[in-house]
Amino acid sequence: MTPNINSFEKHISFLKSGVEKALKNIPLNDTPNYLYDPIRYIINGKGKRLRPVLVHLVGHSYSADPEDLMKASIAVELLHNFTLVHDDIMDNDNIRHGQPSVHKKWDEPTAILSGDAIFVLSQLLLIGLPTIIIQRFNEVSLNICEGQGMDKQFENDTSISMGQYLIMIGKKTGALLGLCAEFGALLSGIKKENAHSLFEYGLNLGLAFQIQDDLLDIFGDESSMGKSLGSDISKKKQTALTILARDNNSEKWLDFINNHSKISDYQSYFDKNGIRSEVEKAVAHYIKKANSALISSPESDKEHLQKFTTMILKRKS
Amino acid sequence: MTPNINSFEKHISFLKSGVEKALKNIPLNDTPNYLYDPIRYIINGKGKRLRPVLVHLVGHSYSADPEDLMKASIAVELLHNFTLVHDDIMDNDNIRHGQPSVHKKWDEPTAILSGDAIFVLSQLLLIGLPTIIIQRFNEVSLNICEGQGMDKQFENDTSISMGQYLIMIGKKTGALLGLCAEFGALLSGIKKENAHSLFEYGLNLGLAFQIQDDLLDIFGDESSMGKSLGSDISKKKQTALTILARDNNSEKWLDFINNHSKISDYQSYFDKNGIRSEVEKAVAHYIKKANSALISSPESDKEHLQKFTTMILKRKS
Repeated sequence: MTPNINSFEKHISFLKSGVEKALKNIPLNDTPNYLYDPIRYIINGKGKRLRPVLVHLVGHSYSADPEDLMKASIAVELLHNFTLVHDDIMDNDNIRHGQPSVHKKWDEPTAILSGDAIFVLSQLLLIGLPTIIIQRFNEVSLNICEGQGMDKQFENDTSISMGQYLIMIGKKTGALLGLCAEFGALLSGIKKENAHSLFEYGLNLGLAFQIQDDLLDIFGDESSMGKSLGSDISKKKQTALTILARDNNSEKWLDFINNHSKISDYQSYFDKNGIRSEVEKAVAHYIKKANSALISSPESDKEHLQKFTTMILKRKS
Repeated sequence: MTPNINSFEKHISFLKSGVEKALKNIPLNDTPNYLYDPIRYIINGKGKRLRPVLVHLVGHSYSADPEDLMKASIAVELLHNFTLVHDDIMDNDNIRHGQPSVHKKWDEPTAILSGDAIFVLSQLLLIGLPTIIIQRFNEVSLNICEGQGMDKQFENDTSISMGQYLIMIGKKTGALLGLCAEFGALLSGIKKENAHSLFEYGLNLGLAFQIQDDLLDIFGDESSMGKSLGSDISKKKQTALTILARDNNSEKWLDFINNHSKISDYQSYFDKNGIRSEVEKAVAHYIKKANSALISSPESDKEHLQKFTTMILKRKS
């Protein structure tokens, strides 16, 4: 690790601790406990806070107002948590950030309602910010719903192309990271057209991030991930690896999945047939696209965001 | 029916058909079907559209801009439908507006996601309207979540007082009707303080409406309600009738509920012990409060809203 990256990571930790503090300071009613106990549980969860940090990172380069940045960044984190709580119900995921997910710790009605209220709280945080912020926030929220809808629709559908898959993860994961980068610029008063390259940065970063997630689900470090490997496959989710394996040789792939279920078999299949390396290339491709989108950004922004890209993609979980 | 009321009902039908048209004209993407098929099903459901009609009714008296009124009224109807879709999952209600509820026609994940997206669509409709509109919309959305949280928390809790019950239905049902009336005034540019009496009107109307709902669940006309009577009791929900019965004579009431389950037994218990008439008095009390809130409203507004009160409370289902 270079000293340069080291000081950058300190800066990120500083931004993250500001975000944590602001999350804890969101004014919340005490009761009803049925609603606010799970909300406090969600807000105090151990998220990486990558999205609000990205808002601040861009916003500082563009000299946006710090208070506005904090409101927008917290709103984005709440939006993200709202989607996690509801997705965890829909996908039957029982662990989130190393803890029982809300519907597991309480029940489904509690998780539905507290997710709803967290989304309302995110809207309330945006009150008073420019209309374009509120508009983009909700446009991207709709993208996320569409992405989740595609993801659910694609389950068990083995005819999904890589193109459809990329549209799905673009909506489900990419659009929100795009919004975060865009917010930093928009809050400095820059026009929407001129903030679009920041959205492109985040969108491509999100694609790289999600494809890497697919890799980690097969090749990750189980202990640091806090969940077992192969969860996408056991849920019949389409991933970059399974789609590519099918595209390369559908007969061989079908024969393989009908006769294997062990994660080590999947690992060696993806390794031997060049699927892993091709998917790793796709991650590199979207990282490059993300960084190229910054071509007309201020130098300080470019430097920070390229380090941010490196930082979040070197994760092991 | 007086000719006066008759022409008023024609006016309401006219407003309702405008709302139906605007609902059908909401620009929606075609795909993914997983998301948009249920959204179209929800929007085309047979709702009474009382809430958007109330927005228009007040808005016309205050000469608010018709386009703004339409956006706000449709947003309010979508908010209402979002809460119905999610509440139906939480409360295990399988019929809505005479049709299978979304989680029954599809499944819970579909209902969670399409509810979320309908709420996002409601936010998008408000873009460009004054900040106070967006703020009040989300404040009331949070009230509704709190009301539903109280309702869930109160299930099986036989220590709930009438006071707690009234706070719960005020948040769950009253606040949204309050918002509808308030919106009509706020969209004419009136200050928030001056629009508050309209909120009071809607809030009290909502209390009367909900208490009447409790009565209809026991004494209603099964065929026109499209559902069986006694559903609140079978779900152990607190209602004005059960709370009052317990308050009046808890020993007798406990003895009764431990030995009876037929709806006709409940009907005669509530009748003989004066519970029904006392609850009917409460409805009348909140109707009076609603109408008194209009004291400083323009004459045309007062007249319309008093007719509106009469109209929606004479329902049998």
